[in-house]
Amino acid sequence: MQLPSSLLQNAVAEFSKLPGIGKKTALRLVLHLLKQEVTEVRHFGETIAKMRRDIKFCQRCQNISDGDICSICANSMRNQRMICVVENIRDVIAIESTQQLSGTYHVLGGVISPLDGIGPNQLHIQSLVNRITKEETEELVFALSPNIQGDTTIYYIQKKIAHLPCRVTTIARGIAFGGELEYADEMTLSRSIANRLPVQQYVK
Amino acid sequence: MQLPSSLLQNAVAEFSKLPGIGKKTALRLVLHLLKQEVTEVRHFGETIAKMRRDIKFCQRCQNISDGDICSICANSMRNQRMICVVENIRDVIAIESTQQLSGTYHVLGGVISPLDGIGPNQLHIQSLVNRITKEETEELVFALSPNIQGDTTIYYIQKKIAHLPCRVTTIARGIAFGGELEYADEMTLSRSIANRLPVQQYVK
Repeated sequence: MQLPSSLLQNAVAEFSKLPGIGKKTALRLVLHLLKQEVTEVRHFGETIAKMRRDIKFCQRCQNISDGDICSICANSMRNQRMICVVENIRDVIAIESTQQLSGTYHVLGGVISPLDGIGPNQLHIQSLVNRITKEETEELVFALSPNIQGDTTIYYIQKKIAHLPCRVTTIARGIAFGGELEYADEMTLSRSIANRLPVQQYVK
Repeated sequence: MQLPSSLLQNAVAEFSKLPGIGKKTALRLVLHLLKQEVTEVRHFGETIAKMRRDIKFCQRCQNISDGDICSICANSMRNQRMICVVENIRDVIAIESTQQLSGTYHVLGGVISPLDGIGPNQLHIQSLVNRITKEETEELVFALSPNIQGDTTIYYIQKKIAHLPCRVTTIARGIAFGGELEYADEMTLSRSIANRLPVQQYVK
């Protein structure tokens, strides 16, 4: 696709780098922006750049945060002795929207997946184990996507903390095997949290 | 959807303004950018803002351009006495990719559509008429989307220039009625240009 302007070409190339955005869609987005006010488009660009530059990760749970500690970890109304283990930030957002979890989170940053070269050391597992030890966590709730990688991760972490007096549960698998957690409807996700099971019962 | 950071919330809100991008997709894009380097994301934002700020429209044909006159109007190898009338810049790009049009373009910026409040004065029609008069244009090729609005626009412009010795044609309608020009495959579009018809034959 030959574009009549190098400025346009550059902007389309930038949008095309985003996941799920092809050249035609990128062009459509750029031409839409071209119809907006200069100040609005500048604001768009600055907001995105500022977000990346200034965003922080909670030092305790690795969730996205505006400060050193995220609003969930800083909230004394929440059960600070319950940790829900999730793969990524999208999962935190999905679970928060159900309003069913009274505890805190721990974002692993992925799941153990040897085929993709992701081992325990690439994930925030050691910091989780340290947290459980130090904070005398009473319950660990796994909310990982129901697939082999998720189960491997549960198994690995469970072994690591077997000596600690912490109850280990996993959200009920109402979600189809191989499904993506973030696309579950809120009702299914709500029930999965309410009906969480001891891991022994799940991983036989 | 409650997000854990106002920076994230703002970035998602900006992406959600784009056409066809919902909140979930916006979040996916923002989280993708969050994984990129700070400099890369800054470059993304700056490229978009710069595109909007610095881009120009060709003073002759209203096509997007890096300078005052676009590369097509400035190209002496092209037939400067043939004008292809299109609705928007996407259509210029689509036709250019067929390499079948030897002439120049005129971008109307839309079509006459009273229901949407778009009359002839909101479009670049007067500048087209002036151009045809001044440049002694020999052929005017309409390449508008084949629907009521497109036909109305052809009819209106044709009336306006009826007194001028300019041949008026339209690209062959191999494209389905109600279809979008920009999504036509290159072969169909190529043939439509090669088999263009006198307007009298088309608008009975």
